[in-house]
Amino acid sequence: MNSVDIINKKRLGFSLTKEEISYMVMGYVQGEIPDYQMSAFLMSICLKGMNDEEIFFLTDTMLHSGHILDTSFLGVHTVDKHSTGGVGDKTTLVVAPLVASTGVNVIKMSGRGLGFTGGTIDKLESIEGLRTYLTEEELRKQVEAIHVCIASGGKDLVLADKKMYALRDVTGTVESIPLIASSIMSKKIAAGSKKIVMDVKVGNGALMKTKKEAEELSKIMIQIGKRYGVVVECVLSSMDFPLGYAIGNGLEVKESIEALRGKFAPDFYELVLTLASQMVALGLEIPLEEAREKVVLNLENGQAYQTFLKLVENQHGNIEKVDLSNTTYDVFSEEEGYITSIDALHLAKISSKLGAGRENLNDEIDYGVGLWLFKKPGDFVKKGEALLRVYYRQKKIEQEEILKSYKIEQEKKEVSSILLGYVK
Amino acid sequence: MNSVDIINKKRLGFSLTKEEISYMVMGYVQGEIPDYQMSAFLMSICLKGMNDEEIFFLTDTMLHSGHILDTSFLGVHTVDKHSTGGVGDKTTLVVAPLVASTGVNVIKMSGRGLGFTGGTIDKLESIEGLRTYLTEEELRKQVEAIHVCIASGGKDLVLADKKMYALRDVTGTVESIPLIASSIMSKKIAAGSKKIVMDVKVGNGALMKTKKEAEELSKIMIQIGKRYGVVVECVLSSMDFPLGYAIGNGLEVKESIEALRGKFAPDFYELVLTLASQMVALGLEIPLEEAREKVVLNLENGQAYQTFLKLVENQHGNIEKVDLSNTTYDVFSEEEGYITSIDALHLAKISSKLGAGRENLNDEIDYGVGLWLFKKPGDFVKKGEALLRVYYRQKKIEQEEILKSYKIEQEKKEVSSILLGYVK
Repeated sequence: MNSVDIINKKRLGFSLTKEEISYMVMGYVQGEIPDYQMSAFLMSICLKGMNDEEIFFLTDTMLHSGHILDTSFLGVHTVDKHSTGGVGDKTTLVVAPLVASTGVNVIKMSGRGLGFTGGTIDKLESIEGLRTYLTEEELRKQVEAIHVCIASGGKDLVLADKKMYALRDVTGTVESIPLIASSIMSKKIAAGSKKIVMDVKVGNGALMKTKKEAEELSKIMIQIGKRYGVVVECVLSSMDFPLGYAIGNGLEVKESIEALRGKFAPDFYELVLTLASQMVALGLEIPLEEAREKVVLNLENGQAYQTFLKLVENQHGNIEKVDLSNTTYDVFSEEEGYITSIDALHLAKISSKLGAGRENLNDEIDYGVGLWLFKKPGDFVKKGEALLRVYYRQKKIEQEEILKSYKIEQEKKEVSSILLGYVK
Repeated sequence: MNSVDIINKKRLGFSLTKEEISYMVMGYVQGEIPDYQMSAFLMSICLKGMNDEEIFFLTDTMLHSGHILDTSFLGVHTVDKHSTGGVGDKTTLVVAPLVASTGVNVIKMSGRGLGFTGGTIDKLESIEGLRTYLTEEELRKQVEAIHVCIASGGKDLVLADKKMYALRDVTGTVESIPLIASSIMSKKIAAGSKKIVMDVKVGNGALMKTKKEAEELSKIMIQIGKRYGVVVECVLSSMDFPLGYAIGNGLEVKESIEALRGKFAPDFYELVLTLASQMVALGLEIPLEEAREKVVLNLENGQAYQTFLKLVENQHGNIEKVDLSNTTYDVFSEEEGYITSIDALHLAKISSKLGAGRENLNDEIDYGVGLWLFKKPGDFVKKGEALLRVYYRQKKIEQEEILKSYKIEQEKKEVSSILLGYVK
């Protein structure tokens, strides 16, 4: 076998065999296939696609490129959650303890963020002292005690994905359904997940720009899951606007704490309730309605928040000390009217410029900077009223630049629900 | 500007600006853009194409990435010839001295071969002592004296193409009309050509597999030429079967010498006459018929061969010593019938396995090995009759493997002309 022949085959649109896919992926992991061949190969996949069989072979090869966790000790009442990533997406911080508080085990293996926003791990690490690297033993003990952990472990899981993702990020080959599906599913299966609720984001601030693409990705992930006896359920949610009020690591922790104490942005509440109910229903094998009641109850009675506090304590964090910059300024509206749109991607880039994102995995992140929105789409704003607060360290961003994200119109437009559909 | 944004733009099918193309190409030449980004970019061009403007920008950027020869001293009676490459394509060795013998200047800057066959320079170097590297001064003197030189100089011409071609060769990104057109035309224009006759090969042994693709490539090259005031005329010729009798460097020189002395394979004769007539007509600005008469005459009266001998002598070669292996074996037909097909690409691979090709530009080539065909498509062959002679050094190739290239049938099929069309 020869890597150039395999690249040519995909370029010409032919399907690859399991052996050919394995030759490329394992050759790359082992350093025998150079970056420049892999990037051409990845681009040919972006543009020529892969059929279901090829995507499964790719997932399976990636899965076996590293260690696979054995989480059988967790039993059947265990659920995982994954988001394809969006702006202001702190959902895991709320959903994981909330679901755990109903007795469902949640082991969440998360990553650091690459690109404009921090990952769940970055967000958690804005809590002073919080450890996200747990050994398999620590992980087990914590889940047995409080049903939940959020960990960054798994450095040895899916080695292929780590190397391939870093390359995709710098070669314009991120946006590809086969590559996204195999990357997500290989990691989930390697982490031992048997039941997964996926939050598939759709919109200008997400990888999937249209509902159709999101449905396609969902179906493929569900198919892959079936091959491994893993149940995958997908919630499609809108990412045209930032989720909730906060963008930035420490700020998103602050918003999550407020939410767990009952104070939610409406869109964030809707999404949390939907995902958590779905997870509880799947985990406890009970009807969705019943699951939703449990979820609402545990938000109201403080159980969810208590579980979050235990998680932070168990992972050595000090909840009193969340990193937030104490230098801020507000950005004011220059016109009066209804906010009809807030550009999520543009605000994410601004947050990243403030220091909340990273371009390389070794870059330092500033947990304390970001944006806090006072207004959401649908809200009315007066001239001179504050739209959002900027938390910065040294670098300020021009008001002009930030205002570009907002569309303010005279006529009120209906803001559609954050929930766009389900795929099971 | 940002290389990932530019790659993404092309991946999504948008047209690139002159600045974006220049950013990528010059960034690559200067080592600021890594191989892995360039190869993803090249693959996106292979699969999403480029419009005429983009191809021109690409050509122009490549052209200016290196030195540009000033050949104005040559005057208007000067013509260049280029072939897109095929199996057994020794045409330049015959056409260049033939055209020069009629008084037209021919400066041929050629390359070494990469892939299955040697390039014109490799072929010439199978003549003992022959120097292909000439200074601009030597080049000028030789052309003034004998109207012709075939040189490998120009190490500093089109630096972008050298680096990009080497990368394309190992990343499955060779077959792309925009990349082929810009590569050829930037080199031709940098070498100072003002009038070019292109031999665009079509068929299984060529880059262009169909006449339609070849016409498209031709039209684009003609368009690019116009931008620089360069006349380009394209001859489309078949490369389904090997050209002439010989495949391999020394053997092709041997065949060229025989041809210049009047002994031609019919297909080779037809092609040589067509290209040479076209070049003479263009160079002397005379009607094609008149040009053809001059060409036929100079083949018959030995002028063409004399010019070849002077070229070899001027470039320090010893015509008595052409490298040919003295170990050979013949391959015999196992059936009786008419040869209806000879697979050019398969024979090229066999010749390469014998040592006549190179995979890397630094690989050594064996000038003395190759294949000499006794039979051509359309010929009748008896069982046990020799089909071809293998010139080898250490490594023999199984008769079985070689016979796979031949299709022998009971019914005689008409062999179509080697000439498939013209594009002006």
